[in-house]
Amino acid sequence: MRFSQFAKTSEESPIRKFHPYAVQAEAAGKKIYHLNIGQPDIETPPAYLDAVHAFNHKVLEYAPSPGIPSLISEICRYYEGVGVSCVPDNVLITTGGSEALRIALICVLDPGEEIITPEPYYTNYHAFVTLTGGAIRPIPAVPEDGYHYAEREKLEAALTPKTRALLLTNPGNPTGTLLTREEMEMIADFVREHDLWLLVDEVYREFAYDDTPPVSFGHLDGLDDRLILIDSVSKRFSACGARVGCMISRNHDLIRHALKVCQARLSVGTVDQELAAALYRGATPEYYAAVRDEYKRRRDTVVRKLQAIPGVVCECPRGAFYLMAKLPVDDAEKFQIFLLDNFDDQGETVMFAPGRSFYATPGRGVSEIRIAYVLKQADLERAIDLLALGLKAYNER
Amino acid sequence: MRFSQFAKTSEESPIRKFHPYAVQAEAAGKKIYHLNIGQPDIETPPAYLDAVHAFNHKVLEYAPSPGIPSLISEICRYYEGVGVSCVPDNVLITTGGSEALRIALICVLDPGEEIITPEPYYTNYHAFVTLTGGAIRPIPAVPEDGYHYAEREKLEAALTPKTRALLLTNPGNPTGTLLTREEMEMIADFVREHDLWLLVDEVYREFAYDDTPPVSFGHLDGLDDRLILIDSVSKRFSACGARVGCMISRNHDLIRHALKVCQARLSVGTVDQELAAALYRGATPEYYAAVRDEYKRRRDTVVRKLQAIPGVVCECPRGAFYLMAKLPVDDAEKFQIFLLDNFDDQGETVMFAPGRSFYATPGRGVSEIRIAYVLKQADLERAIDLLALGLKAYNER
Repeated sequence: MRFSQFAKTSEESPIRKFHPYAVQAEAAGKKIYHLNIGQPDIETPPAYLDAVHAFNHKVLEYAPSPGIPSLISEICRYYEGVGVSCVPDNVLITTGGSEALRIALICVLDPGEEIITPEPYYTNYHAFVTLTGGAIRPIPAVPEDGYHYAEREKLEAALTPKTRALLLTNPGNPTGTLLTREEMEMIADFVREHDLWLLVDEVYREFAYDDTPPVSFGHLDGLDDRLILIDSVSKRFSACGARVGCMISRNHDLIRHALKVCQARLSVGTVDQELAAALYRGATPEYYAAVRDEYKRRRDTVVRKLQAIPGVVCECPRGAFYLMAKLPVDDAEKFQIFLLDNFDDQGETVMFAPGRSFYATPGRGVSEIRIAYVLKQADLERAIDLLALGLKAYNER
Repeated sequence: MRFSQFAKTSEESPIRKFHPYAVQAEAAGKKIYHLNIGQPDIETPPAYLDAVHAFNHKVLEYAPSPGIPSLISEICRYYEGVGVSCVPDNVLITTGGSEALRIALICVLDPGEEIITPEPYYTNYHAFVTLTGGAIRPIPAVPEDGYHYAEREKLEAALTPKTRALLLTNPGNPTGTLLTREEMEMIADFVREHDLWLLVDEVYREFAYDDTPPVSFGHLDGLDDRLILIDSVSKRFSACGARVGCMISRNHDLIRHALKVCQARLSVGTVDQELAAALYRGATPEYYAAVRDEYKRRRDTVVRKLQAIPGVVCECPRGAFYLMAKLPVDDAEKFQIFLLDNFDDQGETVMFAPGRSFYATPGRGVSEIRIAYVLKQADLERAIDLLALGLKAYNER
């Protein structure tokens, strides 16, 4: 049978790629420390279970296509709390941040058009952009300066007559890069000057490790027409399995067009929206601070230990719960297979996400890896020790 | 700001189009009987709430991208029960039947290619096909013969060198048309001869009102390569708000490609999958029979009363919980607005879905309406009486 070009050319998830090796290693009795997936281990606030247990609809009906009013109103309250003005008409509830991004792209990108985004980028951006018929034009960033991309010249260099939008994750997945207020103002100028849409995935907003409160693009003036914020409960509340996100924009035409896409997919899960509303309702400043502090400690641990390994390049990232590092290896994918097939220390080994799949540009990211620091301190320490031991064994084999 | 062609050219949902008139009518104190939406009023089996209340994960984690094993295994058991062989590798869990269809189309249709489907068709098919860059080539059907489309010549006439697939809903939304076994065999021959994919949305499978057990395309031989079944808990269990569906195929390459799309959107809601598994686990033959009988009674009521209205064309449909009828009016959309703005009987009026939006071909469906018989008997009777009174008032104004 004939398949579409998309089916034939899109790649398997890098997680799946190494899954058979992991299965084999576990079958051989090895314990694997997983630094390769962005599934937080932090407990979801119990308010979510209270809402689930209180759910009592006799008919499990479709929710309204834009989302249930109580969740929309909690999201507005949350935004007011972080100093970003937001009214219900600015919000559409989506099936995770993923759907919010997909819908935004559908509304702004035509086949053959381009979107600029820093590279390395979140792997799934590629699928979402390709599905609109558009293409990603990467802004190159390198490990040696902490994947810094926010320079006017770099952005200008990626522009073509087909550019319609700039897409950022801030704080960044996979690099942990966090923009300064000045860099954000520069980016705002850039999109205004070139009349581009600005899509910003801010799902890691609270995970910013400077001592100043996190800045959202929603705080900046003069972006109302062109800013589309992507948000989600997945990381903020360790509630990835809820599949509840949202798209926020003050451009009423955008919301009107996006709503048509929302109507075509009918609605977001009704129980999920109720539990998400409960998470927002129950969240306190202490909750946000505690989670942030926990991730900050983990970041410090991982960076300290990585930087102590000879030949590893790792600038300390300022946000999210990921970092990328360059390893002293020929190929991080081969190294990963080695760690699963040919290495263990006291029956234990480690997995990361090889860097190549975060790059569209061939040949880039080959020696790099992404680490998600979503394990407890002791496990993180052990995982990085295993990485160090593995590196030594790999390069001495 | 510039929007995509899709955003600019796609239409608002017909439900939304008449929403402001409905709001105004209700503000004026009118009671509206809703025949316009496919939200069943039948209670969701309480097993779903038991599962929701028993849910107890400390971390609300992502589910696996293909779906949770317990739900997949319940779905296989359900299929074995209806006599269709199905193993876990044939199943991908999706966010409603809508996502299953969207993913199937992504895998089989390239920009510029065509898919054949009977017209009138479920409105959202248009959006899903357009988003792949493909186009729908309609097989015309008319009210006078009960929207019968399953004739070899009609199918052949819609073929072009760009045709890649045939898409059916059986039993059909919006017409309630149900294929006979012979028609299904003819369709199977047709797709084999022309090497087409066959996508069949069978979410109304149980709602077939002949006295023989419903036939699935999964029962037919020789379709393993090309058959893609779309299914969902929404209608089967009155659980539209769960947003849990699935795609089923015995073509392993299709499943492999579709899984890449599933991985890009990460997962389907975890609580939702648990409650869906409970619905399948708890369903008995008595449950299916009771729901079917209830809808059959309603169908009989609606058809009897519609056929008694002078000038109305309505052949008795054999499945689903929809029917289409042709009214003796110049324009069903104008008539709907009249019913909301200028008509009432003892403070009551009625809404349906005007037929035009179920057609892509300009000028077709203007006098037709779709009725969803998802109200209790007494309400249905009153709703059709209101339609009859409204027709008289409209044509005498």
